[in-house]
Amino acid sequence: MSLVTVGTVAFDAIQTPFASSGKIVGGAASYIGLSASQFAKEQHIISVIGDDFPQSFIAELESRGVNTEGLECRKGEKSFFWEGKYHMDMNSRDTLTTDLNVLADFKPVVPESAKQSDYVMLGNLDPNVQASVLDQMAKRPKLVVLDTMNFWMDIALEPLKAVLQRIDVLTINDEEARQLSGEYSLVKAAQKILTMGPSTLVIKKGEHGALLFNQDEVFFAPALPLEEVLDPTGAGDSFAGGFIGYLAHTDDTSFANMKRAVVLGSALASFTCEQFGTERLLSLTQGELDERIQRFVDLVDFDIVLKG
Amino acid sequence: MSLVTVGTVAFDAIQTPFASSGKIVGGAASYIGLSASQFAKEQHIISVIGDDFPQSFIAELESRGVNTEGLECRKGEKSFFWEGKYHMDMNSRDTLTTDLNVLADFKPVVPESAKQSDYVMLGNLDPNVQASVLDQMAKRPKLVVLDTMNFWMDIALEPLKAVLQRIDVLTINDEEARQLSGEYSLVKAAQKILTMGPSTLVIKKGEHGALLFNQDEVFFAPALPLEEVLDPTGAGDSFAGGFIGYLAHTDDTSFANMKRAVVLGSALASFTCEQFGTERLLSLTQGELDERIQRFVDLVDFDIVLKG
Repeated sequence: MSLVTVGTVAFDAIQTPFASSGKIVGGAASYIGLSASQFAKEQHIISVIGDDFPQSFIAELESRGVNTEGLECRKGEKSFFWEGKYHMDMNSRDTLTTDLNVLADFKPVVPESAKQSDYVMLGNLDPNVQASVLDQMAKRPKLVVLDTMNFWMDIALEPLKAVLQRIDVLTINDEEARQLSGEYSLVKAAQKILTMGPSTLVIKKGEHGALLFNQDEVFFAPALPLEEVLDPTGAGDSFAGGFIGYLAHTDDTSFANMKRAVVLGSALASFTCEQFGTERLLSLTQGELDERIQRFVDLVDFDIVLKG
Repeated sequence: MSLVTVGTVAFDAIQTPFASSGKIVGGAASYIGLSASQFAKEQHIISVIGDDFPQSFIAELESRGVNTEGLECRKGEKSFFWEGKYHMDMNSRDTLTTDLNVLADFKPVVPESAKQSDYVMLGNLDPNVQASVLDQMAKRPKLVVLDTMNFWMDIALEPLKAVLQRIDVLTINDEEARQLSGEYSLVKAAQKILTMGPSTLVIKKGEHGALLFNQDEVFFAPALPLEEVLDPTGAGDSFAGGFIGYLAHTDDTSFANMKRAVVLGSALASFTCEQFGTERLLSLTQGELDERIQRFVDLVDFDIVLKG
């Protein structure tokens, strides 16, 4: 089934204690699109770029079945730019620069060809912008996944709460789940968030894996223990892309299938961490992905015969 | 097979942001003994107490098949006492009081009846004291598990390194693995630690689960997402007790069986967190344990058919 993603397509510059990336392609929709393309054969990306953005990356997306009709290119303007510096733990980071540029007045326009899509991925953006994409859909999509962050909880909590009422799956990290719910226990946080709109919640715990909750069930997918994390930027978006890309491809939103989607998303996120930016997703082969998925299977595989 | 544990049998007083325990029974060997008794039918505990220690707890251990010949009771002296206060995250804690009392000059004596045991659990203690137990064994045991902490890495690193050469399985937490190895990545930390003596390493990550490494394989057991953590004191010891108790009971030290042992240890640790001290382990039934293990099975259960 067709997938529509709204999110940034942009430039990043990343510093880690070990290396610097220089100015490279980044943005939530870039990662989501590449990651989803492992599964989804038909997808649209809705975003905005300046004329400084490399045409070669757009061509790469298109070669992977991404329709870029909804990717607005503004002549004489600059693409969104984010610069950040990771701490020694490669987990926490400081923002050094945020140049909104074209993003400052981004009003996504959903092209006619995308309005019937059954799967919608709302990448991390102003919740009003996320809502405007849903407003333009011709019908209620089968599945809407929303990613957000603490920044929007701080400055746009009411619009965020409003758009949560219109989605199916929320993906946030553990600290954000605590902030949104006011509960420290992630189990209690999940219970509360599941009364706020979404029927399914993914709590991303970075190197500690991800939890998938619905009203009745819980599933845990570990993160693969990695020898080296070069750059975790985009891991969450790669996860989201793999997650919704697999659901759209299989057109199955059951909990059992979402569990598979969480594992596949985790596998794709683990690749993204291995190199700067989108590099690793661009070079990824089907064989490498299969081998990685097998490692996830093996990582948690055990058999126990209960006495009872 | 018979199991010998050396460790503290003591008093704790625990403060959390929500409640205070008052003075209660604690100590590594208390948790290990209770937890191991779920599986191991024959075990010895080697420790030292003062005559202030409740006889009823000793009787409880004995009723569960624990031989207390090696439990020295010193007339007119006081048992080891630790008082601590947990922070809001229920993970980090401050020590308020450490009264060594009888522990100050503890010289464990392994009774004749325990010297042939095949399974030895060296609970968190001065590494010289841990080594002295191995010195007294009649033969090299089949499996020696050692638990330690950052405190001994700070003040007794050389004796710790010496005893590591004589053990099979080391259990430490993630920060301790980083400290001991000087490596931030847990994969690299594990590789390094596996050259220091132990052939198997368990890295305990608290609410984030546990990793089991040997030279060739890695296994991850999640922690059960809990609604409420009342008191995590003793969770690591409960884990160790379940782990070695199951291995001793099954007399199988293969990696496949160690994976089961890690899951069972995690299940027992999750119970310990639900109430103060040893309360929950004391009331635990076989049915409850079976139900909990099933939750661990379900938590990570997924099926994926690879394309390749």
